[in-house]
Amino acid sequence: MFKIDKKSTECRARAGQLKTATNIIHTPVFMPVGTQGIVKTLTYKDIEYLGYEIILANTYHLYLRPGHELIKRAGGLHNFTGHKKVSYLTDSGGYQVFSLSDLRKITEGGVVFRSHLDGSKHLFTPELVIDIQEALNSDIMMMLDECPPYPATEGYVRESLELTLKWAKRAKAHKQHNHQLLFGIQQGGMYKDFRRRSAEELAALDFDGYAIGGLSVGEPKDLMNSVIDYSTDMLPQDKPRYLMGVGTPLDILNGVEMGVDMFDCVLPTRNARNGSVFTANGILRIKNQRYMEDSRPIDPECDCYVCRTYSRSYIRHLYKANEISALYLLTLHNLYFMKNFMNNMRKAILSDDFLNFKKKFLEKFLNNVNI
Amino acid sequence: MFKIDKKSTECRARAGQLKTATNIIHTPVFMPVGTQGIVKTLTYKDIEYLGYEIILANTYHLYLRPGHELIKRAGGLHNFTGHKKVSYLTDSGGYQVFSLSDLRKITEGGVVFRSHLDGSKHLFTPELVIDIQEALNSDIMMMLDECPPYPATEGYVRESLELTLKWAKRAKAHKQHNHQLLFGIQQGGMYKDFRRRSAEELAALDFDGYAIGGLSVGEPKDLMNSVIDYSTDMLPQDKPRYLMGVGTPLDILNGVEMGVDMFDCVLPTRNARNGSVFTANGILRIKNQRYMEDSRPIDPECDCYVCRTYSRSYIRHLYKANEISALYLLTLHNLYFMKNFMNNMRKAILSDDFLNFKKKFLEKFLNNVNI
Repeated sequence: MFKIDKKSTECRARAGQLKTATNIIHTPVFMPVGTQGIVKTLTYKDIEYLGYEIILANTYHLYLRPGHELIKRAGGLHNFTGHKKVSYLTDSGGYQVFSLSDLRKITEGGVVFRSHLDGSKHLFTPELVIDIQEALNSDIMMMLDECPPYPATEGYVRESLELTLKWAKRAKAHKQHNHQLLFGIQQGGMYKDFRRRSAEELAALDFDGYAIGGLSVGEPKDLMNSVIDYSTDMLPQDKPRYLMGVGTPLDILNGVEMGVDMFDCVLPTRNARNGSVFTANGILRIKNQRYMEDSRPIDPECDCYVCRTYSRSYIRHLYKANEISALYLLTLHNLYFMKNFMNNMRKAILSDDFLNFKKKFLEKFLNNVNI
Repeated sequence: MFKIDKKSTECRARAGQLKTATNIIHTPVFMPVGTQGIVKTLTYKDIEYLGYEIILANTYHLYLRPGHELIKRAGGLHNFTGHKKVSYLTDSGGYQVFSLSDLRKITEGGVVFRSHLDGSKHLFTPELVIDIQEALNSDIMMMLDECPPYPATEGYVRESLELTLKWAKRAKAHKQHNHQLLFGIQQGGMYKDFRRRSAEELAALDFDGYAIGGLSVGEPKDLMNSVIDYSTDMLPQDKPRYLMGVGTPLDILNGVEMGVDMFDCVLPTRNARNGSVFTANGILRIKNQRYMEDSRPIDPECDCYVCRTYSRSYIRHLYKANEISALYLLTLHNLYFMKNFMNNMRKAILSDDFLNFKKKFLEKFLNNVNI
């Protein structure tokens, strides 16, 4: 399922291929978020144009509306959406339960919550979350976990980890479909011993991949990086490692350097819709007055359709005039930037030049001048 | 500039070619509305995909924001937008002054109004409206006119027509650029004698084309059709005739039958964003509960990207979930439908089969069953 093409000799970065029921995903990979099965503002031909091999869809949203049973009757997510050749990773829904819904109550059985749509009451159990994702027929499923807040006491994190490990066993035992991959999620807060225990217990269950969970929850960046640093070493070497909800180009470079293979984040798409886009020289905010008559493309170094066709001046005008087309253009550019960034990173790993690539990229990107 | 390829022997329908500074426009033509230079939710590659040769941009909006001087400095509308190979028709701004702005005061000099954006006070004169459109460097410009409401007294319409005719002379006299076409606008309310006088005076000024104005303002359909019926005969035979703000497929068929060459309307795009789309069998409202699990495309007879990729069920889901992608898909389909409709109509005229085409199209379209 997961084949490592190349390991860096300078660091823990690796380039690999993850085979799913749908296609082969080249790692390191960034997965754009497509809550309803499609990245916001885009359609499938854009995903094909951009070359993304996998997108993330949200179990919580699809469960509430239109419902996993409806999607199952439509032949699963690929048939329902018509997006046949791109892999779907579905999350467990746990994160959205905590961020979007009301009245959350966690018991050993699962988590009770109220829908953000109509206030209706629901129970997610480790088993139901597998059932839902099997109905969706996604390519990669995630187990239900509990993510401790930051900061959290050792006692809280210990108890939370025990629960997550029980849920991991139940998820694994409940899985029916062989063609869908199931990833375990490492928890343990900022406690190294708990992270180790979590990694070891999950490895014993032999998941198809392992996510590092419970990060990007408000802890300092250094602490996050130190947890990633030791966690990747604790997780099996021959399976894909997925850092959930991360992140910025800098975070991704750091993650890859430490041996992470997969990332997802709403940042490139949400920021695009807020008028903030990536360029080789840093971040550009299209609303800025100084782009009012700037006839240059968003990123003069970018080959994307948007940069080959549209000026900053016109995109800024469309954005200020609340034209939906502007949100599309900014999203398309940002995801092209991210895909190009990941492609170049993979090439650098294959030619064992990752650290040089990272240095050169960041020198320009963090310098943030002449934009 | 305007060449007639074929006149129907059965009715007044005609197929022609209108040459602009940018390209050749095949008539009869439907022009989608692109207020800010692009059709809402789309980008230029969609216009190319759909095959539209001309789109309408709104002078009023572009004048207020970002301003015609800025667009002039950017090299005109084609350079500002990056849309190099599609013709632009710009309207006079008069209609938006009446529909969007406050404090309108008409004098012989022009019309004073307040911006709907910031309340600032502006004066549109026949000369300024030409200056603005020359700054925009559109392919087809429209003269400023006054459009009487319906109903209006004979006295009101007479006075209004005199004003519009004075403005026509001033517009024509003020035009500087030879490469931009300028269309006159026939007014005269529902009064045949005024319509004749308007047509004759405009013809004497030798415009590049003639619009039929002052319709679709609340009058009964029969009355509208009777005004179109006699007006097309009054207007020069060798110049394009443009029915402004119309309309539905039925209205367009009737207009073409009576000798109209050009149409524009927000209907296919605005209705799409409201979830209402055309099919060969009539109008489909995607919000309808009965499409919840309908795996068919919007229009099984349609070859567009949307119909080849997406189901009613999924588009309905995206629409209900307020996903922007749904607005794009519905808009793209509707404009594909309209372009295909216009292409087929032109083919029918060329093979002198227009009335049969009209009959067959309407039999299915108005039947509205099995959708």
